[in-house]
Amino acid sequence: MAGAAPLKMALYQKRVDEALRRYFPKPGPYADRVHRAMEYSLFAGGKRLRPILCLLACRAVGGRWPAALPAACALEYIHTYSLIHDDLPALDNDDFRRGKPTCHKKFGQATAILAGDALLTEAFALLSRRDVMKTVPPEKRIAVIREIARAAGIQGMVAGQEADLKGEKKKVAVPFLNFIHQHKTGALIAAAVVCGGILGGGQAGALRALRQFGQRIGLAFQIKDDLLNVEGQAHLMGKGIGTDARRKKATYPALFGLEGSRKAAERLLTQANQALSPFGPRAIPLMEVGCYVLTRDR
Amino acid sequence: MAGAAPLKMALYQKRVDEALRRYFPKPGPYADRVHRAMEYSLFAGGKRLRPILCLLACRAVGGRWPAALPAACALEYIHTYSLIHDDLPALDNDDFRRGKPTCHKKFGQATAILAGDALLTEAFALLSRRDVMKTVPPEKRIAVIREIARAAGIQGMVAGQEADLKGEKKKVAVPFLNFIHQHKTGALIAAAVVCGGILGGGQAGALRALRQFGQRIGLAFQIKDDLLNVEGQAHLMGKGIGTDARRKKATYPALFGLEGSRKAAERLLTQANQALSPFGPRAIPLMEVGCYVLTRDR
Repeated sequence: MAGAAPLKMALYQKRVDEALRRYFPKPGPYADRVHRAMEYSLFAGGKRLRPILCLLACRAVGGRWPAALPAACALEYIHTYSLIHDDLPALDNDDFRRGKPTCHKKFGQATAILAGDALLTEAFALLSRRDVMKTVPPEKRIAVIREIARAAGIQGMVAGQEADLKGEKKKVAVPFLNFIHQHKTGALIAAAVVCGGILGGGQAGALRALRQFGQRIGLAFQIKDDLLNVEGQAHLMGKGIGTDARRKKATYPALFGLEGSRKAAERLLTQANQALSPFGPRAIPLMEVGCYVLTRDR
Repeated sequence: MAGAAPLKMALYQKRVDEALRRYFPKPGPYADRVHRAMEYSLFAGGKRLRPILCLLACRAVGGRWPAALPAACALEYIHTYSLIHDDLPALDNDDFRRGKPTCHKKFGQATAILAGDALLTEAFALLSRRDVMKTVPPEKRIAVIREIARAAGIQGMVAGQEADLKGEKKKVAVPFLNFIHQHKTGALIAAAVVCGGILGGGQAGALRALRQFGQRIGLAFQIKDDLLNVEGQAHLMGKGIGTDARRKKATYPALFGLEGSRKAAERLLTQANQALSPFGPRAIPLMEVGCYVLTRDR
């Protein structure tokens, strides 16, 4: 299963990239720098993990994938906005992302702030567009907007971001570290899976199972990110290595060591897959992505 | 009409403030600094113009005001986020707003960026909450989300913000200046009026008339803002005076002089009121707010 995943991932990524291009808003008459900055960061070679999870969750509950494409793209807008703002000098102050200068390094801080703001806003513009998700009942569209807004907001990603900043240069306890990971990264990943389930027509029980899968995969993803920051290869990662340790960030390897972190991630993957058992073979693609989350080298 | 407006405005403001308190999200367990920053900026004594326009537009089409309260509050979240980010050192670098230190002066840049992000996100979380707008059909909720997201995004407020930065220290032509004003301020004000109309049950013709009113009032509001930046009193404004001239910002007074700007704003107010003629006496409160927009001293 692990061997096949990278090939399939590339295929999924291609479908997501096509949709991202198709939905991407046009620039206005006098303002194109922010637009170019949005485009620069959105098409900088991201893994498209959240969109792919959304599409495959849609299929796992028996839905058809096009119904979930707009939501998949909206999730990627939000993920990209969070990276742009996270990289700003006032936050993580990162110069490189995916092997290229970060948005503010390339376009300046003002444009980067606005590009992040615009991507966040366009996520909700896309989810409410008249010409997309026409076959999806309005209640479900609202449910998807609610799911994504909650996951991204003050009780989700933003809270994780704040806790992450607070955790720098401090010895933090396990519950605090899990809070950071579950909110900063896990919340949007879980939302991606749940939104796919909603748009595929999943019922309450299926959505609960998908949320469990998403939460576990989300935490496993962040632990793997922590591991890659220690033992990954900079040329594959396209960003600095060892930066967490230099900043004294709260991470799994710092608390549990490399081996302990690997085991924790594997345990989470097993638990994530268990949550998918009600779906039978339709959930295999989701499991493959889960496997990719742990075996990836970037 | 002008004399009565401030009293009525205070009453409307009170209702909006109550609703803002009621809907405001709770802080998470480990992250409360961003939450405090959101609260600080949201309850810093804003005029609540956008929410009030939304509520009165709802009434103008025969709707009941509570149906529009969540949207009214979401508009104020978005307005507040735009002020917080606009005040950042990378953008306008303002130290004071409404007589108090700006969000980043009080909480630091990282927290201010996140507080803006969170307010923008919470706007859409509020609009999609299960416990609000229960009587509003889901299609209308989607229409409101679409209206607000468009007005705030890359084809609305963000485009105006970018054009505004681009217009500094340059001699700009009238169409460019109007683009700035119509996008940076006008778009969200027009959206406020249109959303009120949608939530009040207004039909296509009524919504067109409200949009015209909103666009004209929005431009008039920004011209008045330009005028107050020249001739206003700092102690009333709670922020710096003469800052536009020092930054060589593109403004109406710079292009048309004080008298020409006043006349342009009055002409727009007349045109705005004309758009309301189909509504009869139900539109009088909206007209009063229009009048307040031009007579205000802060």
